[in-house]
Amino acid sequence: MTGPLPGIAAANRETLARLVAADPVLVDCVPAGEALGLGDRLVLHAGPPITWSAMCPPLRGAIVGALRYEGWAATDEAAERLGAAGGVRFEPCHHHRAVGPMTGLVTRSMPVFVVENRAFRNRAHVAINEGLGRVLRFGAHDVAVLERLAWLRDEAGPLLGRALRRSGGIPLRPLMAQALLMGDEMHQRNVAASSLLARALLPALCEDAGRPGLGRLAAFVCGNDQFFLNLAMAAAKAATDPVVDVPGSTIVTAMARNGTEFGIRVAGCGTHWFTAPVETPRGLFFPGLGPDDANPDLGDSAIVETIGLGGMAMAASPAAARFVGAGGLDAALAITADMREITLGEHPHFRIAIDGDRGAPVGIDVRRVVETGITPLINTGIAGRRAGTGQVGAGTVRAPLGCFTRALEALARSRGAA
Amino acid sequence: MTGPLPGIAAANRETLARLVAADPVLVDCVPAGEALGLGDRLVLHAGPPITWSAMCPPLRGAIVGALRYEGWAATDEAAERLGAAGGVRFEPCHHHRAVGPMTGLVTRSMPVFVVENRAFRNRAHVAINEGLGRVLRFGAHDVAVLERLAWLRDEAGPLLGRALRRSGGIPLRPLMAQALLMGDEMHQRNVAASSLLARALLPALCEDAGRPGLGRLAAFVCGNDQFFLNLAMAAAKAATDPVVDVPGSTIVTAMARNGTEFGIRVAGCGTHWFTAPVETPRGLFFPGLGPDDANPDLGDSAIVETIGLGGMAMAASPAAARFVGAGGLDAALAITADMREITLGEHPHFRIAIDGDRGAPVGIDVRRVVETGITPLINTGIAGRRAGTGQVGAGTVRAPLGCFTRALEALARSRGAA
Repeated sequence: MTGPLPGIAAANRETLARLVAADPVLVDCVPAGEALGLGDRLVLHAGPPITWSAMCPPLRGAIVGALRYEGWAATDEAAERLGAAGGVRFEPCHHHRAVGPMTGLVTRSMPVFVVENRAFRNRAHVAINEGLGRVLRFGAHDVAVLERLAWLRDEAGPLLGRALRRSGGIPLRPLMAQALLMGDEMHQRNVAASSLLARALLPALCEDAGRPGLGRLAAFVCGNDQFFLNLAMAAAKAATDPVVDVPGSTIVTAMARNGTEFGIRVAGCGTHWFTAPVETPRGLFFPGLGPDDANPDLGDSAIVETIGLGGMAMAASPAAARFVGAGGLDAALAITADMREITLGEHPHFRIAIDGDRGAPVGIDVRRVVETGITPLINTGIAGRRAGTGQVGAGTVRAPLGCFTRALEALARSRGAA
Repeated sequence: MTGPLPGIAAANRETLARLVAADPVLVDCVPAGEALGLGDRLVLHAGPPITWSAMCPPLRGAIVGALRYEGWAATDEAAERLGAAGGVRFEPCHHHRAVGPMTGLVTRSMPVFVVENRAFRNRAHVAINEGLGRVLRFGAHDVAVLERLAWLRDEAGPLLGRALRRSGGIPLRPLMAQALLMGDEMHQRNVAASSLLARALLPALCEDAGRPGLGRLAAFVCGNDQFFLNLAMAAAKAATDPVVDVPGSTIVTAMARNGTEFGIRVAGCGTHWFTAPVETPRGLFFPGLGPDDANPDLGDSAIVETIGLGGMAMAASPAAARFVGAGGLDAALAITADMREITLGEHPHFRIAIDGDRGAPVGIDVRRVVETGITPLINTGIAGRRAGTGQVGAGTVRAPLGCFTRALEALARSRGAA
């Protein structure tokens, strides 16, 4: 079943070539309704499809916040009822050329960054990172969260959009390659990428001197070491969408979690999700919190691992390895070496200086995962299991093997070889 | 002569303890006349003292530019005559609590950054980095250079000063420690430090939205990967001034070049300069240029090597090692290992991740330099030997052994042991 079936190698070569040819450029920031045609009472979320009844508390909490923010419900209770009664539709971000971290909510009035893959002219979208602490993506939905969302919509988003359109776009590939050489793996650690982005963005923003909100926006962008995470995700989504459907290819094109299930997509099976129960991350917890406070894994952010970043590029970021509790330099090198066992190539642009300048491992092959039993390692934040808690720690999680065995069976069936 | 003389060890312990206790904070930007009491027709320059007749062409070129900028001469020819005729005084930056890169000129109307060492309450000063290309510090003095200097004085300096005073100061030690973990050695490579500084500075600058010059200043600060170099130098000057006079100590407190001579100061000999003819850097040249175009070494920037950065911390920056033509990761590690042979300690804050997280080598001991024959390696830009050429390349240069043998002889004499 896992032998060298005719055509697979060629299909994988094509998939890998397209994947690493991606040329993501941050071009705009506009309301999601405008960019994605999102209508009334439609809520995009992270991970594979899920119903209200199956959702974890942080995801429900974030939805309550989003419904109140949009004015579709006046109180938390009304929002809960609306969600439970089918009064709003839930669809994955991934079905709408978008990705979202943690709960990953996107509704029509939220501003989204627009990343264009100039090699293929497709676009991907992601909301603006809200910062750390109590934020919607971790399920918090108090007054401060809603006020921040309103400010992002009314002041920050329009300023960012004007600056980006004026700038002609910020090429993300060289910025990400540079950040990888500066100790980011761009999932758990984005301090270099966020700093480089701020330097690229602020001059264009400052041309709007005199507009309300500039001071707050500059502090907001410059004050968040993880500001770039959402853009790394959008860059990865823009890179993977052109390979979502490559018949015969066994390469993973998406990994995403909704807090209940982990889902993957494979190039040879198009937009189908292969799912398995999601695991709970292991790692380090903030003071006073521990494993009992952790929600099972959440978010579309594992899209960055599909292009060679995050856990795949752990060697680039000994500091991130320590932060997620995976050890220091040697452990980080060992993890990336492990990930090379299940990937088909090395990224020609994303290089890891202390790993002999080798390219990051890219192109996760479901055959290799199943053969070796080595599952992709994902760096991740850990959400509190109670809605409103926010982040409780950071760690790593493994993509469940079941997704890959199911995908491989489907690939085999589709070739009549099952 | 180089044995364990009584008191030397204690003096060196004291020197090293003060050196690494430095807590430099960027607190202000004000005209040099105001900060340093510089009067009319006084020109500060890099390196040890020098007369007009002994100066190299780039230094004379920069002086011509500074005299015209200050309005002390109306034409290049008048400026040359004024310089040659003793119509202006020349004194080292180092004699005025200041440092300057390359030619290092400071005159009274130039805005200078103020860095306060909060552990000892002393202050150090440095001009604003002008950017790359044709700039005064490399001896260029055309209309564009003078226009930029006027803009720095009239718009940029006042805006930076207001922002810094409003911010309460930007602590540089944690920023520099972070940058060292992000691939900067902070002499030849400052991309991380410049990015982190931009993130710290821009929010305060943006509170002045509406003032003229903000857009240009944001682009200026964010567009220069070497913007932080001058601040690394001022931080090093602020760290070394409290150890300029520690009787008995054999630790180097300054290394500086004026394009003709290389000078060092040693804690046990106070403000005395021990000089030797300066060498010409070796390295890589910009296209169309080569070793014949290089001026002998220039600038106060080697002050960063006295606190463990630059060539001392080459292991932190394989990219800088490549840029100066010193090889890759292994060569960078070997250079830092070599520098550990001539230094007395490891910096407790400035750590090098890929060198086993060891502190950067700090506390250059003239005894060890003379005993081993290993001279400090300095990363440096290379100025064109013709005034007005600007930078022609980047490379490394060795501090000449003669400075160290002379210093050691003086230390021995002062102890009656010669």
